[in-house]
Amino acid sequence: MPMPPQNAFYAQSGGVTAVINASAAGVIETARQHTGQIGTVYAGRHGILGALTEELIDTSQESAATIAQLTHTPGGAFGSARYQLPRFEDNRAPYDRLLEVFQAHHIRYFFYNGGGDSADTCLKIAQVSAHLGYPIIAVHVPKTVDNDLPHTDCCPGFGSAAKYVATSIREAAFDLASMARTSTRVFLLEVMGRHAGWLTAACGLAAAQDGEAPHLLLFPEIPFEEAPWLARVEAAVQQHGSCVIGVSEGLRHPDGTFVSAAGGRDAFGHTLLGGVVPVLAQRLRSTLQLPCHWAVLDYLQRAARHLASQTDVQQAYAVGKAAVEFAVQGHTAVMVTIVRVSDQPYEWTIGMAPLEEVANKEKHMPLAFISADGFHITPACRTYLAPLIQGEAYPPFKHGLPEYVRLTNRAVPKKLRTAFTL
Amino acid sequence: MPMPPQNAFYAQSGGVTAVINASAAGVIETARQHTGQIGTVYAGRHGILGALTEELIDTSQESAATIAQLTHTPGGAFGSARYQLPRFEDNRAPYDRLLEVFQAHHIRYFFYNGGGDSADTCLKIAQVSAHLGYPIIAVHVPKTVDNDLPHTDCCPGFGSAAKYVATSIREAAFDLASMARTSTRVFLLEVMGRHAGWLTAACGLAAAQDGEAPHLLLFPEIPFEEAPWLARVEAAVQQHGSCVIGVSEGLRHPDGTFVSAAGGRDAFGHTLLGGVVPVLAQRLRSTLQLPCHWAVLDYLQRAARHLASQTDVQQAYAVGKAAVEFAVQGHTAVMVTIVRVSDQPYEWTIGMAPLEEVANKEKHMPLAFISADGFHITPACRTYLAPLIQGEAYPPFKHGLPEYVRLTNRAVPKKLRTAFTL
Repeated sequence: MPMPPQNAFYAQSGGVTAVINASAAGVIETARQHTGQIGTVYAGRHGILGALTEELIDTSQESAATIAQLTHTPGGAFGSARYQLPRFEDNRAPYDRLLEVFQAHHIRYFFYNGGGDSADTCLKIAQVSAHLGYPIIAVHVPKTVDNDLPHTDCCPGFGSAAKYVATSIREAAFDLASMARTSTRVFLLEVMGRHAGWLTAACGLAAAQDGEAPHLLLFPEIPFEEAPWLARVEAAVQQHGSCVIGVSEGLRHPDGTFVSAAGGRDAFGHTLLGGVVPVLAQRLRSTLQLPCHWAVLDYLQRAARHLASQTDVQQAYAVGKAAVEFAVQGHTAVMVTIVRVSDQPYEWTIGMAPLEEVANKEKHMPLAFISADGFHITPACRTYLAPLIQGEAYPPFKHGLPEYVRLTNRAVPKKLRTAFTL
Repeated sequence: MPMPPQNAFYAQSGGVTAVINASAAGVIETARQHTGQIGTVYAGRHGILGALTEELIDTSQESAATIAQLTHTPGGAFGSARYQLPRFEDNRAPYDRLLEVFQAHHIRYFFYNGGGDSADTCLKIAQVSAHLGYPIIAVHVPKTVDNDLPHTDCCPGFGSAAKYVATSIREAAFDLASMARTSTRVFLLEVMGRHAGWLTAACGLAAAQDGEAPHLLLFPEIPFEEAPWLARVEAAVQQHGSCVIGVSEGLRHPDGTFVSAAGGRDAFGHTLLGGVVPVLAQRLRSTLQLPCHWAVLDYLQRAARHLASQTDVQQAYAVGKAAVEFAVQGHTAVMVTIVRVSDQPYEWTIGMAPLEEVANKEKHMPLAFISADGFHITPACRTYLAPLIQGEAYPPFKHGLPEYVRLTNRAVPKKLRTAFTL
C-alpha cells in the first residue's frame, strides 16, 4: 500500500519583505497541484514559533482566489518571528518538540522562508529529524532585502526594495533641485543594510548619467571620514546646485562604531538609537552651513508592494514553487537558488544549493561594485543590479489605496496535551 | 489695429509637489491654444527670482511632447523659490524692477503657482501694476501639499501626498503585524503639516475598518499629553498586538513648544532639529519598554509622483488650464479654485475667488474632522478626503525607474542693462 500523502509545514522567518507572500503563494499553490504527495500545507503562526507552540494555520481553508492575492500583499501573511533555535548539542528540547508536533500532524515536509539564520534552522531540522528517525524533507526558500545569501544570484525581496529606494531618491532629487536656490541644498536618504551596502548601491541606479543624483553614496563597507565627505558635498553643491546622498544605516566610523549611535542624547538624557542621517545633516549645518533635509525609510522600503519589481515578484513566486517541486522529488537540506544565465537580455533560472554551504554564511557586496573614491557604484554594479528592478507589478487598488489581503488564518485543532514554553 | 499678443510669465513658488508641473503643463498647453492673445510663456528660473534677475526661460523652445511629459514629472521644472516680496509701502524697488522686466519682455500675464504667501504676491502684482500704469493680468494657480488655501475645496498636490502617506502607513502596518510577536511592537510615521493636520488625517484613510492601522494619529491641532498617549499605545498593543501611529511633524506640547525640538543634542552638543518620531520612539522604549521602528518621509511625500492620485493630477492640470482661460477673459487678481459639487459620486468643477479673500489666510482643518478623543479622524473627514486620493496615474517607467523629464530651460536673452541685487 503506498504511503498516504504527508502534510507540509511552511513558515516565514526574520524581517519580512514586499514579496515574501508571493513565495508563500508559490508554495501553497504548487503543493495543491501535488495532492498525491502533499496533503495539507500548515503554516506556522509567527514562523517557527507556530510549530513549537502547536499554533498551526490550516491554509486549505483559504480559497484559491485568496491565496492568489498573496502575490500582491506585503508583510508576512502568517506572521514571522525572530527566533534562533539553539544548537542541538546544547539543548535538544526544541527539536524534540518540533518533531513531536510534526509527527502529531503527519508533517513530513518543512519549507522555511527566510535569510541566513533561517537557513541554518532549516539545515538543523533536516539533520536532526533524520538523526532521530523521523526524517523530514526540509527545503529553504530564500528571502531577504539584505541580498546577502550565498549561492544565489540575488534574494527575493531585494529587487523590490531596490526599485523603491532608487525611485524615492530620484523623486526627492527632482524636488530638491527645485528648492536649492533659496532653500534646501542637501537631501540625505537613509536605507537599510547594516552590514552590506546593497540597498545603498541600489540608490545609485537613480543616477542614469554622470552628475545626476544621487551624487554621493555612503556605504557600510567604507569607513566614514568626515573631512573628505564634507569636501565632496561642497563640490557637488558648487557644481550641481544641490547634493543628494544615499546613506546606509550601518555607516561606521573608522573605529568601527556606528555613526548613528554617535552618543547623542535626547531631552530626557537617553542615548538616541537609530537615524544616521539626522547626525550627518547636523554636521553639514554646523560645518558648511548647508540647509539639509533628510528622510528615513525604515520598514517602508521592504513593505512597498505598491512599487514592487516585477522581476522580484516572479522570482519570489518561483522559489516557492521550486521548493515544493524539489521536495516531492526527494531533495532535502537544500536552498532554492536563482541562477543568472545572462545579463543582457536578462535571463535567469532556478537552481539549488546544499544548505551546508549556505547556512550562516553572508555574501558581501564585491568591493569592485564600489567606485575607487568610495562614493558611488561602478558599471559592474549597475550591470548586476539593473535587471533586478525591472518591470512594474502594481497591486489592485480600491478606494484609492492598494487592496491587500488578510487571511482568516484558521487554527488547526491542537493534538498535543503539552504546552511548550518558549 | 488690434493689440499684438502679449507674453505671459509663469512661476512656481514655495515647496513643490508631485503635480505642480501638471499645472505648468496646463498653463503652457492652454496658452499655446490662445495665440491670438498670448504670445510666449516665459517661465521664471527659480520662481519670482527669475523675474527680478531677468532670468527668463523660453518655454516655446520645448516641444509639445516634452511639455506633455511635465504632467508626470515631480518637482518644479523651472525651479521654485521661497521669497516673499516686501510690502510696496516699505520697499517699492522689487516692484519697479518686476515691471521693468515685464515691460521689456512685453509680459502682460502673470501666472503664479503657489500657496498662501504666493497668493499675496500675486495680488500685489495685480494691484501695483495697475497703480503704476502697466496693468498686468495676475492669476493665481493654487498648489500646496498643506491643503490650507481658503475658498478652494482642496489644493493640488495634497491629494497625491495623501494617497502616498496612506499607502505607506498601510504597508508598514502589514510589515509590523508580521513582526510584532518577537520583535517590533510600534511603528511611527512622521508626515508633513507643521500647522495643520491634513496629511496626518490622510494617514487615517488606511484604516478602512475599526481596529485597522493606523491605530492612533497625533495632530498638530491637539496638544500632546504624554500620559493619555502612552495609555492608548499600551491598549492598542494589548488589543491588536501592535500599534501604528501617524504623527505630524508639527506636534506640540501643551506649552506650544514643538515635540521635535525637545532640547535633544547630538554627540557634538548641537541641538537636534527635526524628527518628532525618534523622540516619541525613545519615550515608548524607556517608559513602556516597547520596541519601536519609525520612518520620516520628508520630501518623499510631496515628490512621490510614482503614486500620484489621478484626481489630483487632473485637478492640477485643470487649474493651470483655467488660469489661462480666466486671464484671456480679462479676470485678474483671482485664484482658480476647485469646487466640490458632490461627495458621492465625487464631482468637481472649476471656480474662482478674489485674491483679496485668499491672500495670507489659512484654511484650518475643521475640528469636526478629529474624533472626540483626539486620536483619529471622523466619518466627515473620510467623506472629505476619500475622493482626493482616487485613481492611479502612473508615470512611464524605463529601465525599472520612473522616467521624468528634464527641460532644456533655454534662457531668454536679457534686454536690460541693469542687474538686480536680491
